[in-house]
Amino acid sequence: MKQVYNNPPRSEWDEICRRPQEDPEAMRESVAEIFAQVSRDGDAAVRRLTEQYDNVSLGNYRVDLSPLSLDVDKKLQEAIRQAIVNITKFHQAHIPSGREIETMPGVRCRTKYMPIQSVGLYVPGGSASLFSTVMMLVIPAQLAGCRQITLCTPPSADGVDPLVAWTARELGLEEIYAIGGAQAIAAMALGTETVARADKIYGPGNQYVTQAKLYAQRYGTAIDMPAGPSEVLVVADASSRPDWVAADLLSQAEHGADSQVMLISSDMSLIASVQSQIEVQLADLPRAEIARAALSHARYIYMSDHEERLALVNTYAPEHLIIATSDAEVMAERVTQAGSIFVGSLCCESLGDYASGTNHSLPTAGWARSYAGVNVNSFRRAMTMQTITEEGMRELGPVVETLARAEGLEAHARAVSIRLSNLES
Amino acid sequence: MKQVYNNPPRSEWDEICRRPQEDPEAMRESVAEIFAQVSRDGDAAVRRLTEQYDNVSLGNYRVDLSPLSLDVDKKLQEAIRQAIVNITKFHQAHIPSGREIETMPGVRCRTKYMPIQSVGLYVPGGSASLFSTVMMLVIPAQLAGCRQITLCTPPSADGVDPLVAWTARELGLEEIYAIGGAQAIAAMALGTETVARADKIYGPGNQYVTQAKLYAQRYGTAIDMPAGPSEVLVVADASSRPDWVAADLLSQAEHGADSQVMLISSDMSLIASVQSQIEVQLADLPRAEIARAALSHARYIYMSDHEERLALVNTYAPEHLIIATSDAEVMAERVTQAGSIFVGSLCCESLGDYASGTNHSLPTAGWARSYAGVNVNSFRRAMTMQTITEEGMRELGPVVETLARAEGLEAHARAVSIRLSNLES
Repeated sequence: MKQVYNNPPRSEWDEICRRPQEDPEAMRESVAEIFAQVSRDGDAAVRRLTEQYDNVSLGNYRVDLSPLSLDVDKKLQEAIRQAIVNITKFHQAHIPSGREIETMPGVRCRTKYMPIQSVGLYVPGGSASLFSTVMMLVIPAQLAGCRQITLCTPPSADGVDPLVAWTARELGLEEIYAIGGAQAIAAMALGTETVARADKIYGPGNQYVTQAKLYAQRYGTAIDMPAGPSEVLVVADASSRPDWVAADLLSQAEHGADSQVMLISSDMSLIASVQSQIEVQLADLPRAEIARAALSHARYIYMSDHEERLALVNTYAPEHLIIATSDAEVMAERVTQAGSIFVGSLCCESLGDYASGTNHSLPTAGWARSYAGVNVNSFRRAMTMQTITEEGMRELGPVVETLARAEGLEAHARAVSIRLSNLES
Repeated sequence: MKQVYNNPPRSEWDEICRRPQEDPEAMRESVAEIFAQVSRDGDAAVRRLTEQYDNVSLGNYRVDLSPLSLDVDKKLQEAIRQAIVNITKFHQAHIPSGREIETMPGVRCRTKYMPIQSVGLYVPGGSASLFSTVMMLVIPAQLAGCRQITLCTPPSADGVDPLVAWTARELGLEEIYAIGGAQAIAAMALGTETVARADKIYGPGNQYVTQAKLYAQRYGTAIDMPAGPSEVLVVADASSRPDWVAADLLSQAEHGADSQVMLISSDMSLIASVQSQIEVQLADLPRAEIARAALSHARYIYMSDHEERLALVNTYAPEHLIIATSDAEVMAERVTQAGSIFVGSLCCESLGDYASGTNHSLPTAGWARSYAGVNVNSFRRAMTMQTITEEGMRELGPVVETLARAEGLEAHARAVSIRLSNLES
């Protein structure tokens, strides 16, 4: 068997959990140059960069959706609509509501959740039509109440991917923008004559897109999260079906050569069976070449101790975690760090990738330690508000005077004192 | 009158709303060098950098709080305890709870909120003892359930600021770390022999600290928000008291020479009165020199139209917004972009800075467009979880097969198909 670790000691976990890391310095330079061009020349720069990188010449990269004639299979239309229903149901259950608390008599403090007004969504192109990402970004943005939703996706010779366009129209968008790569991020971060400036930018993409998103922060634009190659970690035991586990590992591996695939098993013979099942299933897989490249750096870990398995899962903090063991529900409750967890043998990652209702924009590269996946809250922000009565001021004012003076901030204290003296008179 | 804009047209708003922006390239280089040293030499580098930048030589920069003998005035102790009560009350009302939604029969999707496990808090030093920041960061971290709370604050010749230490101990921390500046951020982002590696770093600081926080993201460490100089915008009218407004502007101005101070008024004569009141109050203000420097770039805006006033407030997206007008409550409801709003003449910013209950770590520089201030949610993250029954798989499976095939991701479809075929047999 290949790439198998046998009860690796903790000293090896750093290495096992390491994600691919290139030096992005060169990339950062070309991203900086793209931002400089878009900042200087706006739309003209976007057109020029699109010719240069996508080899596509578009007079106008704004794509009006309503007049488009799009031929989408009825069964696919129904499947998209079902996914929209499920994603909407799950996401709308998480719309935060404000709270008001009277912390002292007369002191009312409140949280009010507001939509981020202008958001930029990036839907990558490349080797697959990623219309599912349209659903995963547009639905929470709409539920949050964002006013301006700008969606960019790479151009094709005759416009944009028809399924991306159909899905966007189905969700009620009136237009999308045929711009790809770092120039799409620059256009949304800076704004151009055609593209609205976004307060926050969302969505996956290649490393240029990721670097461009990080760079956008210099211009006051927030981002959903730093993104890296997609990952799955499957936890299995003797009760798991090797053919199902193999299918799950392959579904991650087909994303790209840099996809991260890991299996942790309490049963060594299962690892062997999974590896041979992978070979069987690879035989007629359309994207077998990509999957093989990803699998060449897959990791298969035999770990006999239950607590150690759990600890390694939490240390790795996978984007996707499939728990296919007989005690899946119990183990899932003890997972502290993961993007999305698929609990039980039957629950494959594909379900959440498309249509169970959860979001597929999830933290990779260990960012699950600090980030959630995209959700309605990603498109909202809380403001706090407060009011005070005279009674409240008489109680709280002296406390604040004392604290401010202890910090040496006399003007802070006096802003209270001048009010108190007027109350008393 | 000085620095007064008279009904500025929208073409001037960009200029009015502009925050100070230095080129941080040089700073970034020294931050990179600090990270490189801490990464290579750990604690030894931190000690070396502390000698170099703080001129303090500490054998051990871990400060155990329990044995410290700290002499804190009784009245101040009570004030701190009252602030802790209020901040706790407000923040604990915002602890998110998970949800489970059955999106289709047999398809259960759930959100589970988890604390970020290891957090790093930075409490700046400098010209004031900022023990209030200890409360604003530690309380939500504890309410969120973070396991490892590491607090760094600049060293003094004999350890750390006594009020910072007393407040941290009052909140139950056992130790804090006497490390300041970019080296504190590097130590928490990378971890050293003494300092735990943090998953996310919080807290204000000077520009080196801000650049270090941004740099920390390259190492997989998240940050609360990018921070800039503190800001207040006061909206006033003929009903506002010029002496109170002046006191509020001064309380912001005393923070630092780079503090941003702005007044928008529907009454020109109020602006004149505020300006002369500022001169009166400056006369015996301890930090008058700092306040004068900040006020030299203050902006006073006369705006006769109500809708334009509101639009300018939302465009500026202030960190702190004081609405001291007669229609304060009505106007506050229409504000869409601000960090924290102080509603009504009586409600000065100092209240929220210390003890009303809201947090004082707020988005500056227009980041209120996309960020909330620090809150319990800043210390938590959502994971999604899902389970599916056979019934659910029979319903949802075919939908996912259709969607995955339409995206050209056959292995995604097959992960479902292989399960469905086993169910049917």
